[in-house]
Amino acid sequence: MSVAPVKFQARESIEQVEEGHDLAPKFDDRGLITVVTTDADSGELLMQGYMNAEALALTIKTGEAHYFSRSRQVLWHKGATSGFVQTVRELLVDDDQDCIWLRVEVAGGASCHVGYRSCFYRRVPVGDEFNASAADGQVDLQWTDTEKVFDPEEVYGDAPNPTQL
Amino acid sequence: MSVAPVKFQARESIEQVEEGHDLAPKFDDRGLITVVTTDADSGELLMQGYMNAEALALTIKTGEAHYFSRSRQVLWHKGATSGFVQTVRELLVDDDQDCIWLRVEVAGGASCHVGYRSCFYRRVPVGDEFNASAADGQVDLQWTDTEKVFDPEEVYGDAPNPTQL
Repeated sequence: MSVAPVKFQARESIEQVEEGHDLAPKFDDRGLITVVTTDADSGELLMQGYMNAEALALTIKTGEAHYFSRSRQVLWHKGATSGFVQTVRELLVDDDQDCIWLRVEVAGGASCHVGYRSCFYRRVPVGDEFNASAADGQVDLQWTDTEKVFDPEEVYGDAPNPTQL
Repeated sequence: MSVAPVKFQARESIEQVEEGHDLAPKFDDRGLITVVTTDADSGELLMQGYMNAEALALTIKTGEAHYFSRSRQVLWHKGATSGFVQTVRELLVDDDQDCIWLRVEVAGGASCHVGYRSCFYRRVPVGDEFNASAADGQVDLQWTDTEKVFDPEEVYGDAPNPTQL
């Protein structure tokens, strides 16, 4: 790996941030930036996570997705436990540089700790469909994916579930 | 519009949240939930925003995307100023229900206040490409979209730019 670290620029003007060539990411008061990860082929949204500066620099250097785990408060090389490494085909930044978009290829095809391919396996009826079905205002989530790609117990064993209530 | 409000359920167990039919969204300490918005046809990531409970309920009821603007601290019916209303074709929730995915059709085709179709119009070279090009660690953002769909000054006039440094 090359010796040069990844340099982030200071945020100096709206023009620089929105229309310039500098990478000047906005980390929030926890030191984190939001990350959106989609399947590079299908366009499907796989997960939404966070990076700190170290995770972003490592992702850029290595071409493999690194995140910061809020539940465990550690740097997280995605796939280190499960084997489902995400290879970054494209990394984009948004207009005000407070969000990163990763377009990835996933070894093994799974990104969700529950066992599904994507974390987004349930839909909410909206508009006419909601108003026609939910006279009492109660939402009934509908499954868009019912097939788990792996068994979480086999892969993660006794590791604590990252979901926080 | 139907009279029934949208009911969100209390978060009672990991099983309920991850594997159940209840919509039990996790709003953060600011009362917000992260939203990822993609083009329903192309799969392109258009924007990443936030909703409060009211914005989520209105989106479900009306089938049009409502957000909470952090810069203006107001409920935000996307397109109310620009005309670029987002019609929700599908609304999904992730495993731990702290993120909403909107798959939308955009009137006029633009979602970015800078004038581009998507907020994500610049890429960061990663992996070998970064290491080969950036001997000093300096990132040079590359444009993936150079054509603005509209002129922000014509559409927004003197409204303050939402980008925060």
